[in-house]
Amino acid sequence: MAEALPEELLTGGATRPAGFLADGVFCGIKELDPAIEKRDVGCLVSERPATVAGVFTNNRVKAAPVLVDQERLQRGVTRGIVYCSGNANACTGDQGMANALEMTSLLADQVGVTADDILVCSTGVIGQQLPMAKVRDGISRLAPAKERHNEAATAMMTTDAWPKEAAAQFEANGVTYAVGGMAKGAAMIHPNMATMLVYLTTDAPVARDYLHRALVRAVDDSFHMISVDGDSSTNDTVLVLANGAAGGPEISGGPAGEALTGALRTVAVHLAREIVRNAEGATKMFGVAVRGAASVAAARIVGRSVASSSLVKTAFLGSDPNWGRIMCAAGYSGVEFDPNKASLWLEDILLFHNGTPADFDEDAASALLDRKETMFTLDLAAGDASATAWGCDLTTEYVIFNSDYRT
Amino acid sequence: MAEALPEELLTGGATRPAGFLADGVFCGIKELDPAIEKRDVGCLVSERPATVAGVFTNNRVKAAPVLVDQERLQRGVTRGIVYCSGNANACTGDQGMANALEMTSLLADQVGVTADDILVCSTGVIGQQLPMAKVRDGISRLAPAKERHNEAATAMMTTDAWPKEAAAQFEANGVTYAVGGMAKGAAMIHPNMATMLVYLTTDAPVARDYLHRALVRAVDDSFHMISVDGDSSTNDTVLVLANGAAGGPEISGGPAGEALTGALRTVAVHLAREIVRNAEGATKMFGVAVRGAASVAAARIVGRSVASSSLVKTAFLGSDPNWGRIMCAAGYSGVEFDPNKASLWLEDILLFHNGTPADFDEDAASALLDRKETMFTLDLAAGDASATAWGCDLTTEYVIFNSDYRT
Repeated sequence: MAEALPEELLTGGATRPAGFLADGVFCGIKELDPAIEKRDVGCLVSERPATVAGVFTNNRVKAAPVLVDQERLQRGVTRGIVYCSGNANACTGDQGMANALEMTSLLADQVGVTADDILVCSTGVIGQQLPMAKVRDGISRLAPAKERHNEAATAMMTTDAWPKEAAAQFEANGVTYAVGGMAKGAAMIHPNMATMLVYLTTDAPVARDYLHRALVRAVDDSFHMISVDGDSSTNDTVLVLANGAAGGPEISGGPAGEALTGALRTVAVHLAREIVRNAEGATKMFGVAVRGAASVAAARIVGRSVASSSLVKTAFLGSDPNWGRIMCAAGYSGVEFDPNKASLWLEDILLFHNGTPADFDEDAASALLDRKETMFTLDLAAGDASATAWGCDLTTEYVIFNSDYRT
Repeated sequence: MAEALPEELLTGGATRPAGFLADGVFCGIKELDPAIEKRDVGCLVSERPATVAGVFTNNRVKAAPVLVDQERLQRGVTRGIVYCSGNANACTGDQGMANALEMTSLLADQVGVTADDILVCSTGVIGQQLPMAKVRDGISRLAPAKERHNEAATAMMTTDAWPKEAAAQFEANGVTYAVGGMAKGAAMIHPNMATMLVYLTTDAPVARDYLHRALVRAVDDSFHMISVDGDSSTNDTVLVLANGAAGGPEISGGPAGEALTGALRTVAVHLAREIVRNAEGATKMFGVAVRGAASVAAARIVGRSVASSSLVKTAFLGSDPNWGRIMCAAGYSGVEFDPNKASLWLEDILLFHNGTPADFDEDAASALLDRKETMFTLDLAAGDASATAWGCDLTTEYVIFNSDYRT
């Protein structure tokens, strides 16, 4: 279930920044579960042209909407995003491309802009054509509004149990700006983006190149540091729209840029952790804080290797302080370090010290692992850089769910 | 359960070649299950000096026995291997190194050679010191003999359900030579070696450099092409011993070398497939034959990416012909190919053709996936190279087992 937002975060989701509207409705791509109000087509619209930047899946097999967006992003400006869930529109050939383009035309007509002004996303099953009659009907019923951000976030969901939204604010040049966002995740979440759709918004005016750099920095600390099952999807997309509706001079670096980047990171880290917390079948999450690395890149690689290990994830499920699996996963990450100088902690409990097992209270360690969230700290003793990754337990529910997701 | 050997294979395991003896006993590293006769310390001995080559884990965290063997392999000759199961002797610092060296001294004394003549392996839990009193007792009771190869293969087992043995023969220079082998695997099996111990033997006389090349070729087609859960271990070791006991001129290439390599590959592929078939919780296995790749290396990478995907494995468990997950895993392998030219088959059923979903009989496809073994063929339309990888289903039993392996 969604929990109360941490105190550094605000409500209002992706439409908290001025000039953004959103909506989500049900059109029948998914089977309707009367017990939960599922939605499957949605939009996020900016009332004025927004500078846009994006980061996409590195999968060689890219869904049609990803290809459309990658091309349209070169224009540097957009008016909104139309999207559907339940069908990925991936591996669908020319028909799939035509369908993705039609989705943008339909929303563009409704908003009164051109199709080129609209981006498109899909998430769900691979290899089936979109039911376009239903999609057309759904898009025609979208009525974007400030207060419908939660409906929009719900329309992104596939196997997500709850919509993921967050907002924050920052001050720059004497103006208070908002940053907002919504995300969906659940399965296939992995470093380098995986069936994850994220839309971030801000009412600050931001230079296009700087917006891209700020997005990359925020994503590197958030969505690139989470892992559910190691599969990277055909559809992953993180978009940020900056519409400048709150006024002020254009932000292109300096203290104002750092303030923007910090707020984007705060929202992105929260959404990323929500995705892990809600991973298919997951019951709890863990962090891996890697320190003493030769570089931030090295720290990230080691953290992700540990957070991605099936054996670490299953040991975590069983609250087994089997720290050898963590050292093993760090060892096969490809990063050079001297295991004889490395040390590992579970919260404050020293598990492994300078290459040798430490004596520790197994029951106390196991009790820590029973909590909803736990942090491991791994010191590689190879430098000063650090990074934190997040993972979740691998459960029988994950296996059962994914063995018949489609049929 | 172990099945009857395919017809190209012979019985007799690692001691089928002349001049090899083996044994395995129970000393108490593992908890004894009275229902199954478990053994946990063993040896493989050559009656005469054997040329030796090895391939080891690429994990940065290497167990003490791996470090010992890597150094001793530089001598190029050995008299045997002593090993234990239930404890990996990894992340155990100086004490672990002293224990590994003592194991080699104990077997050396018994066989009447020097400690440098003996190699050592361990497999099991990481981060605990070996119970050396038990290990000493166990090694003292080893009585290596030709007919005790099955006991030796049993002593390697950790979570394996059955011992894995195979033998084959080849003719070269008018002499009939034997090749034998034993292996253990089960969990953490992954390309690039993972808690996997394999000992191969031959009574052919083989030049040291050529023996290494033949081993690498055999391993590239077998143990490097299997995946259970993506974790690479601290202890993986594949050793080949060639003692020349059957006489004849030294083999260093040419038709004799190809015959040797072919027999090694036959034994290695069988043992690798046995490891997958016996993977923790696995109920069935699948092959991924990648063809039309730009290079053999590219074909291997794509095959392993598919065979390692948790989402492919869970779909396979549910006999769901969800081929989109296969294309997705091929796409994130890092290998360049054009998805719009790629095609995919399940046995004879075309699933995906030139970038577009094919119409196929879902029930027939699902029935094929219910079998003990199924083959996918993926044509990348990017060249002439091919390779085959093997994987297994990911089951709830895997998760349950690995969530309390240690405690």
